[in-house]
Amino acid sequence: MKKVHVYVTLKEGVLDPQGSAVARSLHALGYDEVQEVSVGKWIVVEVEEGPNLEARVTEMCEKLLCNPVIEDYSFSVEEAVSS
Amino acid sequence: MKKVHVYVTLKEGVLDPQGSAVARSLHALGYDEVQEVSVGKWIVVEVEEGPNLEARVTEMCEKLLCNPVIEDYSFSVEEAVSS
Repeated sequence: MKKVHVYVTLKEGVLDPQGSAVARSLHALGYDEVQEVSVGKWIVVEVEEGPNLEARVTEMCEKLLCNPVIEDYSFSVEEAVSS
Repeated sequence: MKKVHVYVTLKEGVLDPQGSAVARSLHALGYDEVQEVSVGKWIVVEVEEGPNLEARVTEMCEKLLCNPVIEDYSFSVEEAVSS
């Protein structure tokens, strides 16, 4: 069993209203040191080991987990506790 | 300037309907090796350097970025390109 950590974020230049809202709220709470906030997704997928793991995860990202028009992704594979 | 990466995820045992929906969709696409999916948030906060950075980020997480009743968080601080 492997744990794949997928990180999805909006591409540079794409408007991030959720990030702007969080930044405004942090300013309202007095955290004036905050410059910019971006909000992305962190998806953990547990998969059974098999051939072509990285290629299959890339496919999953491009087909479902990420919208490649407006989002970038990266992933890392971690050995999970065997079970 | 520092970049703080905050990772927010549902606590163990809290129902994750978004994760289940993603797992079902991956199965429907033929990725039968997928066992479990959890969907969390990855928030990047750019902050000006100052005293008590870690304590202030902990406060931000507990007040706004995370709902401590149902979510866990962790963060790491990265030196950003100076600007």
